[in-house]
Amino acid sequence: MPPPNPDWVKALTPSGPQGSELLAQERAKSDLNVDQLATFLFTDEVLERNAKLLEILSSNPVFDKSQNYFRGRKERLEAALARAKALRQLSVQHQWSQEEYEAANELISEPTPYGLHAFMFLKTLEEQGTPEQHKLFLEPAQNYKYIGCYAQTELGHGSNVRGLETTATWDSKDKTFTLHSPHLTASKWWIGSLGKAANHAVVVAQLILDGKPYGPHPFFVQIRDLKTHQPLPNVHVGDIGPKFGYNTMDNGFLLFNHVKIPHVNMLSRFSGVDPQTGRYIKPSNPALVYGTLTYVRSTIVFQSGSVLARGVTIATRYCAVRRQFQDRDAAEGESGENQVLNYTMVQHRILPLLAASYALFFTGRSMINLYKANQAKMAQQHARSGSDAKRLPGPEELNPGSDLLSDLHAISCSLKAFASTTAAEGLEVCRRACGGHGYSSFSGIGSWYADYLPTVTWEGDNYMLTQQVARYLLKSARAVLSGKAADNSISRVFNEFIRRKDVGAAFDVLGNDQHLVDAFAWRVAFLTFEALKHRDEDKQSWNSLLIDFWRLSTAYAQYQVVKNFYEALQDETTKSELDPSTLPVLRQLFQLFALHYLTTHASEFFTSAAITVRQIQLARTKSTLSLLEQIRPHAVRLVDAWKFPDWQLDSSLGRYDGKVYEDMFHRASEVNPLNDVVFDPYPDSPILFREDVKAKL
Amino acid sequence: MPPPNPDWVKALTPSGPQGSELLAQERAKSDLNVDQLATFLFTDEVLERNAKLLEILSSNPVFDKSQNYFRGRKERLEAALARAKALRQLSVQHQWSQEEYEAANELISEPTPYGLHAFMFLKTLEEQGTPEQHKLFLEPAQNYKYIGCYAQTELGHGSNVRGLETTATWDSKDKTFTLHSPHLTASKWWIGSLGKAANHAVVVAQLILDGKPYGPHPFFVQIRDLKTHQPLPNVHVGDIGPKFGYNTMDNGFLLFNHVKIPHVNMLSRFSGVDPQTGRYIKPSNPALVYGTLTYVRSTIVFQSGSVLARGVTIATRYCAVRRQFQDRDAAEGESGENQVLNYTMVQHRILPLLAASYALFFTGRSMINLYKANQAKMAQQHARSGSDAKRLPGPEELNPGSDLLSDLHAISCSLKAFASTTAAEGLEVCRRACGGHGYSSFSGIGSWYADYLPTVTWEGDNYMLTQQVARYLLKSARAVLSGKAADNSISRVFNEFIRRKDVGAAFDVLGNDQHLVDAFAWRVAFLTFEALKHRDEDKQSWNSLLIDFWRLSTAYAQYQVVKNFYEALQDETTKSELDPSTLPVLRQLFQLFALHYLTTHASEFFTSAAITVRQIQLARTKSTLSLLEQIRPHAVRLVDAWKFPDWQLDSSLGRYDGKVYEDMFHRASEVNPLNDVVFDPYPDSPILFREDVKAKL
Repeated sequence: MPPPNPDWVKALTPSGPQGSELLAQERAKSDLNVDQLATFLFTDEVLERNAKLLEILSSNPVFDKSQNYFRGRKERLEAALARAKALRQLSVQHQWSQEEYEAANELISEPTPYGLHAFMFLKTLEEQGTPEQHKLFLEPAQNYKYIGCYAQTELGHGSNVRGLETTATWDSKDKTFTLHSPHLTASKWWIGSLGKAANHAVVVAQLILDGKPYGPHPFFVQIRDLKTHQPLPNVHVGDIGPKFGYNTMDNGFLLFNHVKIPHVNMLSRFSGVDPQTGRYIKPSNPALVYGTLTYVRSTIVFQSGSVLARGVTIATRYCAVRRQFQDRDAAEGESGENQVLNYTMVQHRILPLLAASYALFFTGRSMINLYKANQAKMAQQHARSGSDAKRLPGPEELNPGSDLLSDLHAISCSLKAFASTTAAEGLEVCRRACGGHGYSSFSGIGSWYADYLPTVTWEGDNYMLTQQVARYLLKSARAVLSGKAADNSISRVFNEFIRRKDVGAAFDVLGNDQHLVDAFAWRVAFLTFEALKHRDEDKQSWNSLLIDFWRLSTAYAQYQVVKNFYEALQDETTKSELDPSTLPVLRQLFQLFALHYLTTHASEFFTSAAITVRQIQLARTKSTLSLLEQIRPHAVRLVDAWKFPDWQLDSSLGRYDGKVYEDMFHRASEVNPLNDVVFDPYPDSPILFREDVKAKL
Repeated sequence: MPPPNPDWVKALTPSGPQGSELLAQERAKSDLNVDQLATFLFTDEVLERNAKLLEILSSNPVFDKSQNYFRGRKERLEAALARAKALRQLSVQHQWSQEEYEAANELISEPTPYGLHAFMFLKTLEEQGTPEQHKLFLEPAQNYKYIGCYAQTELGHGSNVRGLETTATWDSKDKTFTLHSPHLTASKWWIGSLGKAANHAVVVAQLILDGKPYGPHPFFVQIRDLKTHQPLPNVHVGDIGPKFGYNTMDNGFLLFNHVKIPHVNMLSRFSGVDPQTGRYIKPSNPALVYGTLTYVRSTIVFQSGSVLARGVTIATRYCAVRRQFQDRDAAEGESGENQVLNYTMVQHRILPLLAASYALFFTGRSMINLYKANQAKMAQQHARSGSDAKRLPGPEELNPGSDLLSDLHAISCSLKAFASTTAAEGLEVCRRACGGHGYSSFSGIGSWYADYLPTVTWEGDNYMLTQQVARYLLKSARAVLSGKAADNSISRVFNEFIRRKDVGAAFDVLGNDQHLVDAFAWRVAFLTFEALKHRDEDKQSWNSLLIDFWRLSTAYAQYQVVKNFYEALQDETTKSELDPSTLPVLRQLFQLFALHYLTTHASEFFTSAAITVRQIQLARTKSTLSLLEQIRPHAVRLVDAWKFPDWQLDSSLGRYDGKVYEDMFHRASEVNPLNDVVFDPYPDSPILFREDVKAKL
């Protein structure tokens, strides 16, 4: 640690109105009820729970964040493992629920080497293991005797699971499976918690019986010695190296050289091998993973709003503290620089993202509710059919009701792609809106953004997913045309389009919020029928339509978000829980969000003949400007309602108290370990650092 | 260093067709003359020079890159300083020219702590110092006795130079200036080479004479002891801490507590203080900095094409090696996965950027030529007027010819904003197009992107600059309307618009390349006159027009790039230097680039009535698809022509030989230092690392 600042430096304060004064002024400008809005978003219970967790974590030195931005990878990983261990201990000590454990992880806000153990590994053992396997594998894993990971992706194979190369070959003589990596590209890769922490792995490998492949299946495999933590013989395992972010996680690689495991190590709740005959036992439910992925994607959608809100909170507060230039039309004699947040160009970058954070929040909530409704419906139908109540049914067992599952699948795919792209790219916009200081690690946005980025690729690459959405929309459109469609949301959209397309639409997007939603629905229908024509009539190749499909999926996602936001505001609970003065501000956010995307994709609204050129022009200029002006005074309170503690944000720029410059300076001058080292700057000197110089003085 | 791979791992190769085979096939598909195209782009002289430099650097262990991605900040800075020193020594030894020194830095591809000394510090002393000051300050600086930096930006003040708070107060009694930082926000901040390396700084401070401020001026100030390298008394200096990128540079802070410097330390070639009377000596040329900034911006434009080309090279090669899924319309029995580059969705992301890299290259070249033409013209006029030949004249001295300077200023502002944004955002698109592996540091894109990002903020924030462009365009439009405009490029565009706007435009953008350029010109004129009406007739506030101005500036930049690319291809030299088979491919790149931006901003082309709805639709679908298909076979050769050596790219994914997986695996398994460390993974253990475990085994 460098020495403290000299006294004459300590005596200095920022010039002009202080950050704390400016934020106080901002908060005085608006009468938005922050606490009530926060309660509405999160419930008091959750807010109180988080406050308790914060107290526990922030008072424990192992969670001290002050060195985070300065550490190299090894030190970061070391700290992250220490935190993971401490968190596990606290979790036992305080008997935390899964929700509390996850909330604590969110406050810490960085991945840890226990991440994949605590979620994917335990979950897979639980869902795919038999009762015998639960006893053998799950119990020691729950007690952290076994630390594990989920090893699916390979060096040469990402999204295409069927292409996996690792094999598990059944040997009927000794009743074992031999795990083997026949090529370099078969190496497991990107596997979280595998690089340094795991001693076991669920390995997804191609099952081979009698020389015949039966597709990818999960196997439970020990990979490191329980005492020495050294790799077992014929296992080559390690960390895959540094990444753009996520460097507190030990993503790993794993290769097998003919490693034998007993029969019981194939996770066989759903499918397996008969140890006597060596015959394959067919899965009773091949679609289970489909449900799990839908759950994971729904979670990504649910989190996207608050992921983005962190960046928006930091940028909004800093842009209220930062002042630069005078307004060009300022009257003679007016002095002092203008708050950056007063410039429309800055508002135009940040406020639509503020609106998006709320829009995504409401959409995420509705997505989770839809998921739960689906689960409940499936369980109900399942109970009626008398099957094993613990097992979830697959879509093929639920033919009459399976529409809901395929709706859910398509909605979760399109929203996962749109929400995670919006959050990731929005964070970068927030970072740049902070000007030069946004580039400092102390902004707190850069590392958050870098850690979030994989979300656009994993659990279905955002571009790949759009094909599945298009397939669903084309299929639904065909059903509508053939008169066989179920009466669901998307067929109503398509039917309405068909009914009106010859008389034309005339949506009053600037005067009527429902029309705004309808215009987004119209665009989806227009793009769907256009794509359908290309595919079914013009017989265009699938590959030649991928770009259209991506546009279509994006349009579908935007329609969902606009609709969900609108419906959340129409909801009676919303109206009853919020002050009458809050609702109009949320409505302005809704309009800003919708008009922002409407103008960004204006030409699609044109060509679909949903809106006139004049309305687009007005939406882009007058309406947007007027909304920015109306929302501006509430901006700081609107981000305050997200209730991020300073400890969680770990940002000089986003501090609640506005002491931006003091904090930047303190971290740079008094914490930064580089300021405890002396360089020899001359080119003819072979010495680089002179840590001894000070001692000699 | 971890141990080498075991023999059974060494024996593994990637499955399927090897990367080297796939790239060989790609190169065989096209007959584009790569070497000839490279010569056309760079000249043989430059290519040979670079080859020589590469040999010198790559054979010197100090420039070994193999540990770059693994190091923490201190180690990276240490290595960067060692490289800066070695580069200086080599530069003396081989008597490198400035161009050679810069080319060597480009091959190393990371900033060093000598960066600001070698460029900004020496340049400022040279340009702003008197002959006496050259002897006193510049000479020791050129010999690296003094290591310096250029300290302008402050903690509270970025773009607005007039708001700087550091003061330099003249004391007539002892003929000194007192440098002082009255507030914390006065701290110099972000100053490259200041954090650890510099012992001197050119400090930009508010000159105060007799209690009256005279604006910001440059002062030469010693800040660290020449022997101990410790800060001098009442100087507080250090490194500002880690950043999103640029971490091999020691950006620093600097505060003064009433530090006295002699009269001679005010750099006074252009303005100064009379030491006898204490009177201010007015600058003979206040606009010089204006010229320097134009030069710096022109350089950014010039570099943007090759900055982007690095990412495009990596993504294109990797997407030709990476295979995933079968084509959905593949015939029964066809086997093997498809090269990712064959998917139109991937082409749609990468190939327009490939086109942009060429477009920006031609624009950059024309920008530099325009700058040189301007310099020559100014020198000529200046010589005619008989002034000091060594001094560059300011615009106010050149009234008749000053149009060229203000054209140049506006063009450089708009292009700097557009080119650096396109390059930065394009790199991120390339990174994501590499899928999961794009996130690995070994992709080589992430660090390059992170280091490049400040370019969108420095030398004029990309959003701020657009105001200056709009001001120029509005002024030019007013001149045209009042009949007082000079006959220059922009007034011809405006006049043509005025002539035709009532009869309407009908640009055949799909059939005629000149029309494509004209449509971009038309859009600029339309947006300019619209903004002019808002400002002059509707009397809208400047602030309310900032978003329109940003759109206008972007449109202006795109018009310049499209026009420059078109003109480069029309040029007789181009036609004579390239094979007749190369030109059509470059023309396809031109069309793809133009149509890409035309469809991205389709609604502006609509509203300006430049193009029909039908043409937009066709441009978006058929024309773009057909161009992607035509360019696809040449993609690898087109990136090969950029001639980046593997050593420069330092990318597993972008290797010339396509050995992507071998290289990823080698770096992760055999180089990654984390694989030489053993963790204790259990939550009840207080020990984190067990480096001793292996010794015990």
